[in-house]
Amino acid sequence: MAYESKAVRRVEFSETDMAGIVHYSNFFRYMESAEQAFFRSLGFSVVTDKTDPPIGWPRVRAECDYLQPLHFEDEVEIHLLVSEKRAKSLSYLFRFRKLNSSPPREIARGKLTIVCVTHDADGNMKAAPIPKALADKIQVAPAELLI
Amino acid sequence: MAYESKAVRRVEFSETDMAGIVHYSNFFRYMESAEQAFFRSLGFSVVTDKTDPPIGWPRVRAECDYLQPLHFEDEVEIHLLVSEKRAKSLSYLFRFRKLNSSPPREIARGKLTIVCVTHDADGNMKAAPIPKALADKIQVAPAELLI
Amino acid sequence: MAYESKAVRRVEFSETDMAGIVHYSNFFRYMESAEQAFFRSLGFSVVTDKTDPPIGWPRVRAECDYLQPLHFEDEVEIHLLVSEKRAKSLSYLFRFRKLNSSPPREIARGKLTIVCVTHDADGNMKAAPIPKALADKIQVAPAELLI
Amino acid sequence: MAYESKAVRRVEFSETDMAGIVHYSNFFRYMESAEQAFFRSLGFSVVTDKTDPPIGWPRVRAECDYLQPLHFEDEVEIHLLVSEKRAKSLSYLFRFRKLNSSPPREIARGKLTIVCVTHDADGNMKAAPIPKALADKIQVAPAELLI
Repeated sequence: MAYESKAVRRVEFSETDMAGIVHYSNFFRYMESAEQAFFRSLGFSVVTDKTDPPIGWPRVRAECDYLQPLHFEDEVEIHLLVSEKRAKSLSYLFRFRKLNSSPPREIARGKLTIVCVTHDADGNMKAAPIPKALADKIQVAPAELLI
Repeated sequence: MAYESKAVRRVEFSETDMAGIVHYSNFFRYMESAEQAFFRSLGFSVVTDKTDPPIGWPRVRAECDYLQPLHFEDEVEIHLLVSEKRAKSLSYLFRFRKLNSSPPREIARGKLTIVCVTHDADGNMKAAPIPKALADKIQVAPAELLI
Repeated sequence: MAYESKAVRRVEFSETDMAGIVHYSNFFRYMESAEQAFFRSLGFSVVTDKTDPPIGWPRVRAECDYLQPLHFEDEVEIHLLVSEKRAKSLSYLFRFRKLNSSPPREIARGKLTIVCVTHDADGNMKAAPIPKALADKIQVAPAELLI
Repeated sequence: MAYESKAVRRVEFSETDMAGIVHYSNFFRYMESAEQAFFRSLGFSVVTDKTDPPIGWPRVRAECDYLQPLHFEDEVEIHLLVSEKRAKSLSYLFRFRKLNSSPPREIARGKLTIVCVTHDADGNMKAAPIPKALADKIQVAPAELLI
């Protein structure tokens, strides 16, 4: 059972904006890349055709609090923690830490709620239970890590 | 005094992802483009060197609830409403409506809080009062529009 | 028969980078949005399920020469010209003009070659003739416009 | 003296489009990230305030040929090779190889030309010689690697 995952990336030039810092929308792309690493660490992928019927994971809610900016070539750690697990949805907490400061400091915090869906004959999405093989591998993080 | 602004855009191919819908991070770019139109409608720009000292508008909090997906070439209206006005910060509510459905329907709702800052000699940002010429043109939207 | 299309857009904050100018990769997104407007002007879409079999338009070659930078809130016109038309492919020339300079000036020039494809049973793409209904509406621009 | 650099990345969900493949504009972001790694390998950065006067590296020409598509979670190697070195400019060749195919295969090839610039008092860019400390570390790749 797993409840966390860490990913590290270095800020790229194309992720900055004219204010000289990472554009705020990119934090949501960062969150997603950490989620993809989390799924891979469980032997799964957020995109799969191995389930029957095929499932998808639309985002239903996203948020981010920005404490300090990130700059070009900063190293940022994205720490994913499972904050809620329901039959058909998952929620994550993300802590962004800038590693190249002394000491490393939290510079942003995000949350994401995703829903497991299948598609009906017309292509419309419908919430569906998380496949057991995956659900059995995921648990909620200890409360003290979610403060 | 103004409290709202509307922008319309058509979904571009590059804004979609392999799920066939607009990538969730792009809603935050959409919010920002509506904010830029709001500032222009007041005779200002979110980027200006006309104030002394120069100011900037970092985002300190962003969130979005996703109700329905957007697809390629959908027409989406982004309705900005000023939800809070403080000495040094502004908050917006954004309603996303898909215009090419009958009737047009709200498909997402976002919030954004921005802070007015100046930069000290070391380049560090420091919260500062919103310039009077701009603040005098902005008011909070009527409560019934913010429900 | 059509051989050109013009689209105008205003540079958004999220399209800039820390050099204070539009990131060079975004010119390729701009080209594509002009192409989408071109198809719509012909009563088609670059994404369609109306053909049997369904077709797609992968890009096989792209290039851009950058003469002058674009800045935030600049108004840029993207002028698409059909430069080559073959049985299974199309090539475009794009002229980027900054409208808010006096006089408006060409600030970049791009080229794009796309191929019409269908997908076999395994999902692999295979070049296919451009559907006649569409091909009949497109012609190559006069040579003097392509210099 | 160095003439090459290799970077590996895994395709992220946000880099795909509704055709289910990496959006063609992202290959230009990939090229740039390989270039940033190349500069770092030389003990420099593409963004620096250590030179007097400060320099920048605008792109003046970019191109890419697409042979095969990239999909979500593909591993791609971007191999940068210096193809031309002049007093005030550099050109690169980029080979994109998909590592998770057997055998790994070249799926795209790009080229980029950048110019070293300084800024005059009005902020206008002007071509300038590449600083000697950097130029001394860069050489053109052997001809047989540039075919």
